[in-house]
Amino acid sequence: MSTALLKYMEEHSRAVDECLKTLFETRKPEQPESIRKAMAYSLFAGGKRLRPVLTIAAAQCCGSNPRKVLKTAAALEMIHTYSLIHDDLPAMDDDDLRRGKPTNHKVFGEALAILAGDGLLTQAFETAADNALDIGLDAKATAKLIKTLARGAGTSGMVGGQVADLEAENWRSRNHGFKPGTTLEYIHLHKTAALIIASLEAGAILAEAPVIQQRKLAAYGRAIGLAFQIADDVLDVVADKKKLGKKGSDAQNHKLTYVTLYGIDEARAKAHALIETAHRHLAGFNKKAQPLHDLADYIVARDK
Amino acid sequence: MSTALLKYMEEHSRAVDECLKTLFETRKPEQPESIRKAMAYSLFAGGKRLRPVLTIAAAQCCGSNPRKVLKTAAALEMIHTYSLIHDDLPAMDDDDLRRGKPTNHKVFGEALAILAGDGLLTQAFETAADNALDIGLDAKATAKLIKTLARGAGTSGMVGGQVADLEAENWRSRNHGFKPGTTLEYIHLHKTAALIIASLEAGAILAEAPVIQQRKLAAYGRAIGLAFQIADDVLDVVADKKKLGKKGSDAQNHKLTYVTLYGIDEARAKAHALIETAHRHLAGFNKKAQPLHDLADYIVARDK
Repeated sequence: MSTALLKYMEEHSRAVDECLKTLFETRKPEQPESIRKAMAYSLFAGGKRLRPVLTIAAAQCCGSNPRKVLKTAAALEMIHTYSLIHDDLPAMDDDDLRRGKPTNHKVFGEALAILAGDGLLTQAFETAADNALDIGLDAKATAKLIKTLARGAGTSGMVGGQVADLEAENWRSRNHGFKPGTTLEYIHLHKTAALIIASLEAGAILAEAPVIQQRKLAAYGRAIGLAFQIADDVLDVVADKKKLGKKGSDAQNHKLTYVTLYGIDEARAKAHALIETAHRHLAGFNKKAQPLHDLADYIVARDK
Repeated sequence: MSTALLKYMEEHSRAVDECLKTLFETRKPEQPESIRKAMAYSLFAGGKRLRPVLTIAAAQCCGSNPRKVLKTAAALEMIHTYSLIHDDLPAMDDDDLRRGKPTNHKVFGEALAILAGDGLLTQAFETAADNALDIGLDAKATAKLIKTLARGAGTSGMVGGQVADLEAENWRSRNHGFKPGTTLEYIHLHKTAALIIASLEAGAILAEAPVIQQRKLAAYGRAIGLAFQIADDVLDVVADKKKLGKKGSDAQNHKLTYVTLYGIDEARAKAHALIETAHRHLAGFNKKAQPLHDLADYIVARDK
């Protein structure tokens, strides 16, 4: 990661963390202590805050102040965290470790883990609506903000991708017109890219950016989102257990990944081509788009 | 149920069903078929549409047209359905039957059931935001609508109640300053009343009713919500398996209920007193509040 990006990520992820902590502190008297702890455990488990930083960078790129979009940035981290908690459940990917720590259900039990995910997803919408209210966003943009988050997170987006991913497990054993390449792109576009696109669009909506800018940022998001997941597939194979904090479970489960389908070299090449596409979508923006350029480069650099 | 209420419920629950079907039909190409089926299975499993009808009745009571609030009414049924799917999971209440049919995870497996719940919860927020956009609701009311649904559904509301309910299991065996009465009211107010209150508030918000009317409807909702859950506790004990479609599992699990705590007669008396309170909160409204009066009476009449 470049020094400039490192500084940018540190500064803004700290602001997001403070925002999340304040939100959790404020709600303390209203929530059972156990679920507050379960939600906080995964929310503050050392995530890189990529999605919130994308929201902030998108808003800045469209001329807005990062403080104006902080709550929605926090909301996106809540949605991302909920998805990790539910994905790790025994009925899903059945992972014991996440970022080197026991997964939520391993610490709090399955029931509380399911409810912690539900709680985070729900609170995300409340927090985004609060953000719109705070900054006096107009009615259409407020509704669009909520719809953008919901479409990115729901069955047309991330949840749809997770469903397709589960159904593609053991794909090698299938024999009935199954098209792994198409399915794989569907999975990656939905499971990962959809929420990344929503993070960028949300920043642009809160910045009251013109629709053409929202679309360019969405296209940038689609490219880095796909690249991010391809890079993740590569990471999952090459990284050792210690570095990633979990076993290379995709290969063990015979999951459909870019690496199992195309091999490591071609997967890497695809990711790099997508990053070039991402840079091109930022061409119309001024120098405030630099963090987004840096973030695109960082996404594929992770696998080195 | 009175003939007038029966007619009212039939008319409006049909409208809600049609709205839900249209919403699902429109989204067909975007969603994996399996999750669409899993969501539809529980959404169209013969629910009474109580929460949507409360949204419609609240809006009418405040002078609005029921068609103006249909999507949010549908959204409330999505939230309610998601909560049933997740509550029935093996890690939670572990129920095999719901309304006489196999529960979602029994038909579609645990993974898809969890994701179907997640999908419904997410789509609810999208649908409510769409509703606000359709009727040109102002920015503050739009944000308030989303916040109201989120607070009713989340850890300050329904999810918080479910957490407390799970933790109160086997309460009889505890011995350390546990106050069953306080816990029980907390559970009922959050697990059931919170979403009923949100259903009524949402109708009032969409009708652009004055805050004083929103508060009266919320107070009415609190009373019928508590009464509803007490009546449910009674039902769970007295109803036979066939009538309710599931076993009297609360008693088997030694759950904390109004019946296990106070006995059937006192539980019934409490429910009736709450219904009187509910009627009083409607005193300031005109004859358009009649369906809400009828609904209050129906809630306790169910256990006869």
